[in-house]
Amino acid sequence: MSDQTTATDTSWLSPEALEQVRAQVPLVYVDAVPVRVDPLGNVTKVGLLLRQAADGTISRMVVTGRVLFGERVRDALVRHCEKDLGPLALPRIPVDPSPFTVVEYFPDPDRSGFHDPRHHAVSLAYVVPVDGECTPTQQALDLAWFTPEEAVSPAVRDQMTGGHDRLIRLALAHVGQLP
Amino acid sequence: MSDQTTATDTSWLSPEALEQVRAQVPLVYVDAVPVRVDPLGNVTKVGLLLRQAADGTISRMVVTGRVLFGERVRDALVRHCEKDLGPLALPRIPVDPSPFTVVEYFPDPDRSGFHDPRHHAVSLAYVVPVDGECTPTQQALDLAWFTPEEAVSPAVRDQMTGGHDRLIRLALAHVGQLP
Amino acid sequence: MSDQTTATDTSWLSPEALEQVRAQVPLVYVDAVPVRVDPLGNVTKVGLLLRQAADGTISRMVVTGRVLFGERVRDALVRHCEKDLGPLALPRIPVDPSPFTVVEYFPDPDRSGFHDPRHHAVSLAYVVPVDGECTPTQQALDLAWFTPEEAVSPAVRDQMTGGHDRLIRLALAHVGQLP
Amino acid sequence: MSDQTTATDTSWLSPEALEQVRAQVPLVYVDAVPVRVDPLGNVTKVGLLLRQAADGTISRMVVTGRVLFGERVRDALVRHCEKDLGPLALPRIPVDPSPFTVVEYFPDPDRSGFHDPRHHAVSLAYVVPVDGECTPTQQALDLAWFTPEEAVSPAVRDQMTGGHDRLIRLALAHVGQLP
Repeated sequence: MSDQTTATDTSWLSPEALEQVRAQVPLVYVDAVPVRVDPLGNVTKVGLLLRQAADGTISRMVVTGRVLFGERVRDALVRHCEKDLGPLALPRIPVDPSPFTVVEYFPDPDRSGFHDPRHHAVSLAYVVPVDGECTPTQQALDLAWFTPEEAVSPAVRDQMTGGHDRLIRLALAHVGQLP
Repeated sequence: MSDQTTATDTSWLSPEALEQVRAQVPLVYVDAVPVRVDPLGNVTKVGLLLRQAADGTISRMVVTGRVLFGERVRDALVRHCEKDLGPLALPRIPVDPSPFTVVEYFPDPDRSGFHDPRHHAVSLAYVVPVDGECTPTQQALDLAWFTPEEAVSPAVRDQMTGGHDRLIRLALAHVGQLP
Repeated sequence: MSDQTTATDTSWLSPEALEQVRAQVPLVYVDAVPVRVDPLGNVTKVGLLLRQAADGTISRMVVTGRVLFGERVRDALVRHCEKDLGPLALPRIPVDPSPFTVVEYFPDPDRSGFHDPRHHAVSLAYVVPVDGECTPTQQALDLAWFTPEEAVSPAVRDQMTGGHDRLIRLALAHVGQLP
Repeated sequence: MSDQTTATDTSWLSPEALEQVRAQVPLVYVDAVPVRVDPLGNVTKVGLLLRQAADGTISRMVVTGRVLFGERVRDALVRHCEKDLGPLALPRIPVDPSPFTVVEYFPDPDRSGFHDPRHHAVSLAYVVPVDGECTPTQQALDLAWFTPEEAVSPAVRDQMTGGHDRLIRLALAHVGQLP
């Protein structure tokens, strides 16, 4: 059960090839909800990126991205957390491989309530505590931390699209912190 | 949030197209472990199909199959249970969308311990109680029910390939019935 | 691993003895959120009892009750569902012994957000699909079924006390149906 | 939702009072399986204490203990981890309040397969990654770390009583590392 990721090197697709695949099968995604926790394991803050969403808007959103051919889910989680939160975030990848929920993104916004105009993606969603310093890197304009109350407030919900506001509520419910 | 599956009608790929996609991205799968339960919810029996496995052997295995483009995970679960267990099985699809584990099948048998020579698949695994009459249909030679003790015995484990014996142990642990 | 419940016969405590124990240790409880599901496992309705709550008010609430000395958690779940929903409810006790959340009821309403003036109780909370006919029996004035949208509406939330409205939101999030 | 534990100060019972309560209601317990993890969240080692078990034998076992009156489950988890692993263990208490399984210990060893001659306890079981240095303190003779393969080997299983060997297998299955 080796975890080296060398086998994934050949998995980068050309934009054209990816476009074609997207019309044929659902893609495997991971969603990571970054959180700050206290020493008792209580979630105290939720981290939300400000970046261009799949629908073109500038939105608040969680860490999200594709699992590559040959890549373990855990490797994809670490890779996307590092890509979006920076190399010093120190994400604590959960020991349990089971996601807290499965998010089904469809081109049709009414199909599941989760929407991605580009494709059908089945995303494994995890809550990921991060202890280190987060510096939004690639493509993200900003990363801000919100209390559970703030994260579900109308002001923050209005900044999210594609169902990410609902994903935040599901994540907070999972950790027992939904207000 | 409609659940009609009409959008999936166009998702059947030609064998050639599927072959090409398989070399480029991980596929989304579902695995269903059919079980019999008593009125208290205790798992009393595990159902194992006898059929040709992905590696060509005739093996004992669980219900497994691909999620199609445009298809909800729940629809895929019902479709594959009906395909393998017959139309009268009455599967009780779990209310929780989160699988009890995520099984990563790789062409390389040493990558995760779960093996499929055809492709890389990320499979959402569920325990599915079935109340009705099961009549293995398409492609399956037989369906047999085993107690938890029998299901993890060397005699039955030796009839499974690709890691399905381990999947059975994970499923039984999840329901508290691993001997 | 026998499941006969004969050993629990001696576990009924006099009101005085229970009163004394309540001041000394947390009690083990189970909470069951009764739901109706469609054939795909989607929760379509949530059942809420109308009865006298622990704080004396007439409130909407879920099935709840104590685990007795010598009693299995599954037996307690069935017993309380039958007591509150009637003998024909046909509850489907989950196969997974793990609750979807743990509810900590304290005499101090600010301690966890879940409140019971009588005692400190640690309650294992389950979502329980019921297929049969429900006839509220002992102590309950009424049982009504609400859609997920209705169940989290202000009108219904205002009829709940002790944190039961929050428990409903956590249950709906768990099954992916929190609006 | 304050988490101060001052309210638990009065919850220490005299041995006589505890003895009396034990014969009347199930007690609330927590079990913590200490693990070492790699940066991807894979469990690499399981920690097992060597100490006098409830049945009087010197056995390998996990961290376990009672939840006090007025105490939050998270506080009890931290308290027992510190008591058994020392003040520098740095346990990462899970963000999800739901245990991976519920262990029902009975005086009758055949009732559930989990045995405690002293009482009926309902224990919430968690996998707890520990990053820091562990120095077994109170009552424990030793703490040793085992790979998943070693932890389920006959040699180690024979050193466990009361069902703790089975609990280890359930924990390893939960994290996808059951051999």
